[in-house]
Amino acid sequence: MARSVAGPEIERLIQLLARLPGLGPRSARRAALHLIKKREQLLQPLGEAMQVACERVMVCDNCGNIDTANPCTLCCDTSRDNSILVVVEDVSDLWALERAGALNARYHVLGGVLSPLDGVRPEHLNLDKLVMRAADTSVTEVILALSATVDGQTTAHYVTELLSHCDVNVTKLAHGVPVGGELDYLDEGTLSAAIKQRTRF
Amino acid sequence: MARSVAGPEIERLIQLLARLPGLGPRSARRAALHLIKKREQLLQPLGEAMQVACERVMVCDNCGNIDTANPCTLCCDTSRDNSILVVVEDVSDLWALERAGALNARYHVLGGVLSPLDGVRPEHLNLDKLVMRAADTSVTEVILALSATVDGQTTAHYVTELLSHCDVNVTKLAHGVPVGGELDYLDEGTLSAAIKQRTRF
Repeated sequence: MARSVAGPEIERLIQLLARLPGLGPRSARRAALHLIKKREQLLQPLGEAMQVACERVMVCDNCGNIDTANPCTLCCDTSRDNSILVVVEDVSDLWALERAGALNARYHVLGGVLSPLDGVRPEHLNLDKLVMRAADTSVTEVILALSATVDGQTTAHYVTELLSHCDVNVTKLAHGVPVGGELDYLDEGTLSAAIKQRTRF
Repeated sequence: MARSVAGPEIERLIQLLARLPGLGPRSARRAALHLIKKREQLLQPLGEAMQVACERVMVCDNCGNIDTANPCTLCCDTSRDNSILVVVEDVSDLWALERAGALNARYHVLGGVLSPLDGVRPEHLNLDKLVMRAADTSVTEVILALSATVDGQTTAHYVTELLSHCDVNVTKLAHGVPVGGELDYLDEGTLSAAIKQRTRF
């Protein structure tokens, strides 16, 4: 804003909101106005929810998930299959897999992928704990649910090497046509992978 | 989410964030994770900024603007031209005009436009105060900076009637080609208006 039209408190709220992913300076201004108009219904509860989250949210020492309990809800869930360990890059990937509800296993969050360009090296990832968990006799399979990017696949190879002396099957997610996807719009790499890994109808 | 993967505090933060304009359930989850990862830099200051805004932001009794002072910064600004009063629908419109920096006048926020379908009637708008302010001898012009929609124009006509006994010139924003706009993409109404109100080159 060229000139300050509102008090510094409002400007600060707008500036902080603009740092959220998905909000830019203009939508942050809209969001701030919306918040101020819905003071009792939204602004106050959201401010309180943020302070509660700030005080109580922690990283699970066992799997790297984010929760208000340590060990987290998933690690404490006795109904989950202890024999399968799903390795993910980030908590958001864990949430995505849980939304899909495709499996009822344990997770392990690496906290990133190896990336020489960004200076992310093995010691920056939650790998020691993974080796320790995979060495547990109850674990029979480690699923590498990592992104199909260069960095994700490099990390997958590295983890596979790391787990070579553990008595576990290391598997990875299938490549193929996304459900609902049209062949016309897919890239050559995906189509080749889908052909190579075709299954009986 | 089918199953709860995170504590109720995180779920509540996500639900409240999803009610912001511009954020849906998925982007709210991304925003919540981003906030939790940047606890010191973002989550804590944003929570505090919201509580400060919640306590200190108020509506200016004079013009209807939102600020932490009453009368607001704009009403107290002695460098502004007292003879021009710009009537806007909402605080966001006031901010937009201030960003443009096209004029240095006083504002009056109506808090909405007349809309029979939505049940918005004259008594719901900040109109009495507008008549009072327009009756001040220092005011010579009232600019109706209202949206070019049916409701906006209905409101403009109503306000003009209301101010007919005041000794002020009532003006409205020009219709025409937006700066940077291509004729090819413009609707017939805008093009007709731009032709009718053509000016000397």
